Amino acid sequence: MPHTARPASRILEPRDPDWEATVRQSFARQKVMKLIGAEMTALAPGHCEIRLPFRDDLTQQKGYFHAGITSTIVDSAGGYAGYTLMPKGSDVLSVEFKLNLLAPADGELLVAEGQVLKSGRNLVITRGEVYAIKNGHATHCATMQQTLMTMHDKA
Amino acid sequence: MPHTARPASRILEPRDPDWEATVRQSFARQKVMKLIGAEMTALAPGHCEIRLPFRDDLTQQKGYFHAGITSTIVDSAGGYAGYTLMPKGSDVLSVEFKLNLLAPADGELLVAEGQVLKSGRNLVITRGEVYAIKNGHATHCATMQQTLMTMHDKA
Amino acid sequence: MPHTARPASRILEPRDPDWEATVRQSFARQKVMKLIGAEMTALAPGHCEIRLPFRDDLTQQKGYFHAGITSTIVDSAGGYAGYTLMPKGSDVLSVEFKLNLLAPADGELLVAEGQVLKSGRNLVITRGEVYAIKNGHATHCATMQQTLMTMHDKA
Amino acid sequence: MPHTARPASRILEPRDPDWEATVRQSFARQKVMKLIGAEMTALAPGHCEIRLPFRDDLTQQKGYFHAGITSTIVDSAGGYAGYTLMPKGSDVLSVEFKLNLLAPADGELLVAEGQVLKSGRNLVITRGEVYAIKNGHATHCATMQQTLMTMHDKA
Repeated sequence: MPHTARPASRILEPRDPDWEATVRQSFARQKVMKLIGAEMTALAPGHCEIRLPFRDDLTQQKGYFHAGITSTIVDSAGGYAGYTLMPKGSDVLSVEFKLNLLAPADGELLVAEGQVLKSGRNLVITRGEVYAIKNGHATHCATMQQTLMTMHDKA
Repeated sequence: MPHTARPASRILEPRDPDWEATVRQSFARQKVMKLIGAEMTALAPGHCEIRLPFRDDLTQQKGYFHAGITSTIVDSAGGYAGYTLMPKGSDVLSVEFKLNLLAPADGELLVAEGQVLKSGRNLVITRGEVYAIKNGHATHCATMQQTLMTMHDKA
Repeated sequence: MPHTARPASRILEPRDPDWEATVRQSFARQKVMKLIGAEMTALAPGHCEIRLPFRDDLTQQKGYFHAGITSTIVDSAGGYAGYTLMPKGSDVLSVEFKLNLLAPADGELLVAEGQVLKSGRNLVITRGEVYAIKNGHATHCATMQQTLMTMHDKA
Repeated sequence: MPHTARPASRILEPRDPDWEATVRQSFARQKVMKLIGAEMTALAPGHCEIRLPFRDDLTQQKGYFHAGITSTIVDSAGGYAGYTLMPKGSDVLSVEFKLNLLAPADGELLVAEGQVLKSGRNLVITRGEVYAIKNGHATHCATMQQTLMTMHDKA
């Protein structure tokens, strides 16, 4: 099916003129991002990228990034992708997400990208992809499907 | 349907006599657990509990535990529940998990419990529950369904 | 953690006095249930059971119930478990579900049980279990986690 | 991240020279496809499309395709996408899938597309998309993430 079948306007038009400041301020309040060393490296309507350099204290038993750390950055990438499209005065809530681990998260950098698939009045559905960068080569190490809820008048 | 319909023997009998030491050594190698302050507080065949006291640097924008931190401990609780039943010399791999967030993870302590639902030769299916303890009251804040893979002869 | 920690009142009290008639009428309008031969065999606040006798035309390539047929009855069992608790005049919508297939759906009867885990104002989270009955023995063949949305004033 | 980062060869090269006949014969044995009227309309290494014309007896309470019917065709589309890449003599097993319902499955035709994301020795991860076609317009109505298992020497 042609991807153009999905009307892009439903997905990409922010409803809050201050969406960028709103999202960046919320990210700055996520103290866990500072703990692990994650940064928001790209933000656009319906899209968010978060990067996380490798640190030895973020690892599981084999020395790779722990799947929970992967999910921490991709849950936030998906959540903030969705938040860019929510109305002024609302907050974003993760309802659920599902993460498939495709390969070991083995690299000097993790890159998580969140992208809105469907932006409804209350629910926003996103997809997340995570890549492990090692010696300049990217391995697709995880994929996520996520449901967000718009909390109206809660910010 | 009666739960007794599921033959408990398929679920609860460890195949590695040293299962407890194997699991505890693997947990001790997950450096991220030290970073966030998580401890394994119970371990039995097919079951694992991990506890995480609140810290301000584990939070999302509202001051609750970040969903990624919740998933970090419940992914490990499910993974180690499954690992208790795997044969000697194998390692455990998270294939995927799905987490529903039922309530804000608001409390002075998070408790994650992993329980094996089905232990097959290669795949192990677990369920995880997470409770937020606040003033002695437990709120069921997340529920997980997880698929694990037994990596034979990989430990 | 004690299951009693979850306040039962939030889960089990219907908000629509006519919940049973509402749910049964909705199920009767699901024509696909007649096509496959499924029946609602139990209904209580927060709980629903659907049974489906084996038929050769419901099978996958090995002669077992097709996973899509399993998901058809467990999606409805979860959905109607949730619908029992929704306010008068609302309708129920499946937002998403996740199904783990634990064993072949091999038997003369499938039994799907839906149970509400959390009933919020807009979202309801359920769990579903499916058992295959063969020669009087029940095998736990699938487990589901599901998110429902209350569509207020839509019935 | 560049999609070219994923080596296409790992994904697209069939290991069984008779993959097409193997897959089509398996689909022909799924009797439920005949019951509901579904057809396999495209097949390529790592890809499968299944189409299902509307019928009144496939509907839920609102008159749209039932979510279980949607999952029936997209589970098979993902499963056969994966099966195209499995070795000779193996069979395919759905381990789990997760379906997000993005819009009502309202149309005269449903089109389900399965695509392999990662093809490992034992596990294959796929994505599925479902479109509802109404008056020539396609609406993206569901998205799936799925895990398959290769059953070696089981066909």
